[in-house]
Amino acid sequence: MTDAPSGTGRNGHPTPPAMDRLTCVIPAGGVGSRLWPLSRANAPKFLLDLTGSGDSLLRATWMRLAPLAPADRVMVVTGSAHRSSVTRQLPELLSENLVTESEPKDSSAAIGLAAALLELRDPDAILGSFAADHVIRGEVLFQRAVKTAVQAADRGLIATIGIHPGHPSTAFGYIACGAARDDIAPFDVHDVSEFVEKPDEATAARYLESGKYLWNAGMFIARASVLLDQMAESQPEMVAALREIAAAWETERGAQVRERLWPTLPKIAIDYTVAEPAAAAGRMVCIAAHFEWDDVGDFASVANLLTRGRSSDLAVLGDGAQVLSDASSGIVVSESDRLVALVGVEDMVVVDTADVLLVTSKSRAQDVKGLVNRMKITGGGHLL
Amino acid sequence: MTDAPSGTGRNGHPTPPAMDRLTCVIPAGGVGSRLWPLSRANAPKFLLDLTGSGDSLLRATWMRLAPLAPADRVMVVTGSAHRSSVTRQLPELLSENLVTESEPKDSSAAIGLAAALLELRDPDAILGSFAADHVIRGEVLFQRAVKTAVQAADRGLIATIGIHPGHPSTAFGYIACGAARDDIAPFDVHDVSEFVEKPDEATAARYLESGKYLWNAGMFIARASVLLDQMAESQPEMVAALREIAAAWETERGAQVRERLWPTLPKIAIDYTVAEPAAAAGRMVCIAAHFEWDDVGDFASVANLLTRGRSSDLAVLGDGAQVLSDASSGIVVSESDRLVALVGVEDMVVVDTADVLLVTSKSRAQDVKGLVNRMKITGGGHLL
Repeated sequence: MTDAPSGTGRNGHPTPPAMDRLTCVIPAGGVGSRLWPLSRANAPKFLLDLTGSGDSLLRATWMRLAPLAPADRVMVVTGSAHRSSVTRQLPELLSENLVTESEPKDSSAAIGLAAALLELRDPDAILGSFAADHVIRGEVLFQRAVKTAVQAADRGLIATIGIHPGHPSTAFGYIACGAARDDIAPFDVHDVSEFVEKPDEATAARYLESGKYLWNAGMFIARASVLLDQMAESQPEMVAALREIAAAWETERGAQVRERLWPTLPKIAIDYTVAEPAAAAGRMVCIAAHFEWDDVGDFASVANLLTRGRSSDLAVLGDGAQVLSDASSGIVVSESDRLVALVGVEDMVVVDTADVLLVTSKSRAQDVKGLVNRMKITGGGHLL
Repeated sequence: MTDAPSGTGRNGHPTPPAMDRLTCVIPAGGVGSRLWPLSRANAPKFLLDLTGSGDSLLRATWMRLAPLAPADRVMVVTGSAHRSSVTRQLPELLSENLVTESEPKDSSAAIGLAAALLELRDPDAILGSFAADHVIRGEVLFQRAVKTAVQAADRGLIATIGIHPGHPSTAFGYIACGAARDDIAPFDVHDVSEFVEKPDEATAARYLESGKYLWNAGMFIARASVLLDQMAESQPEMVAALREIAAAWETERGAQVRERLWPTLPKIAIDYTVAEPAAAAGRMVCIAAHFEWDDVGDFASVANLLTRGRSSDLAVLGDGAQVLSDASSGIVVSESDRLVALVGVEDMVVVDTADVLLVTSKSRAQDVKGLVNRMKITGGGHLL
């Protein structure tokens, strides 16, 4: 791959190298309700330290992107309620690169607005979208994959990064790879045949066996204008509204336009407005990557991350956590320094916060979301 | 049975009816370490409310004995550290009936000292010893059994009360019944053949099947002098020391004698100094009783007590306990008003205190004692 100038841009001037036109967008939304009571409405997953590193997932994401783009080319899209938390976590973030939503509208609107703003700043801008609340290990492999994706994006394609599955996970969606695209980079670039939902165990095993399926890590890299044009094919009104909001953004009318149009936008994931139709139209490529990736969907994932997959360890998360245990599995998350004692119980999930204590098992960790949903209806919402 | 005068006492005066010579002694010792972290050195089991009644086990014991003996004939033997807690729980307790031990010496010394004090007050005194930390339901049946036991004690026998087993428990010791003693009272009185330790499951089932075995509830009723004389057969020095302490009790030399002799006493359970040798000598009878009894040995017992044996209930103990759960078994004990959420876990024991959180299972609840013992050695003693 090369970072050499790509040629002549739309405005007739020579365009800078593709990597110099990359802006990393970090959509920071989603509470992560399977991680309740650690995650809360005012302490969403991306603000949590789930690896014991001392950094929130958002901060870790920022630092991971730093070698790829300078601070003035990293943008965060988040809920207005999280503005101060985000700026505290990311003091380097420029104020014009902090985009807040008055209400959550899912990833099409969030990433689409970022794309519309970038497109105005530079018609040749390349956007790379990276979730604020995933964990990645293997920074160099990650950087290499992004650089390859940027090459593809520079050619007008929409690129995603897929992860070689380490096991037949039923917790992730998959990407089915098609023909190799050695024209972009040797090895590891393929057309995307299709995106598939979380499979059952037999299907996941088959995917792993075939070698043609990658985990969908939800990363998208494309020219901002290409991404918006793709979205406009199925959501023309939405994209028109996003471009109208962006055009007014820094004017006196900005707030007014935003308040008028934002609430009208549909809540829809970018998978449906961009990724799947682009794949169907042959405009989507996938970079197959070998770094470790996890979306840290529940406490079982947190346990596996902390023990780095070793199955004979109790995982412990919390600065002052004090644990006395005969368990060789499970996880204790503690926000206090009081003693947590486990006697004769395996595979437990114990989450000890100031106002809520959760006890579940690794195998039932996904069901925490159901409890949270019931609490929304039956009361206890102040604890969510 | 009859409460009529029993005849002429040793001093030539007519003796009052046997029930009027009964003093109930409540040995209040033992932390109950299987109930840690609810039980602590400074909050022993007898000071806890384990039934949700609002009363400590000690207070409930006091109230259970009130119909059998007036306040001036109820005595408590406890550690000096618990003096103020006990008087707070039992404001009716006379100061001369509160006997404190400078260090714990097990039940022979505790009950023996009470016997020596009562023997001095009245040579015909009858002593009934009832643990401070057991739970009994069926007060009338309990009272009837005690009255029958007092009749036997008045004849110079040592009586115990045995509980008809409701199930083949392996958590209790058993009493093997011998010949019926219809001379004392029709039905339900038998010689004690022997005391047997906690059995294994097969043996417990055989005991239940035979109909001849009762749970040993650790209650002893005897003339104070008879009990001491029995103890003196195997522990003559101990009994001499106890009688010397008692003789000096209310004199100027009382404290000095106590301080000199108490530390020399052996730590030995009354089962070995009185019950077993008396049974072997044919001086022991057992009153078979049908009231509900439990020594509340661990959190599994607490759960069963709270749900009254129903197997499809989660037990909850704690005034302000807030629990959100899909469990149909297990127990949550909470000393705070924070939410305890259980998701997809059965038969759990969760004990939530200010400085310790314990998570175990009902089947492993006995093992809490082992953890406590390890903490005594490895540190964390301030939490015990």
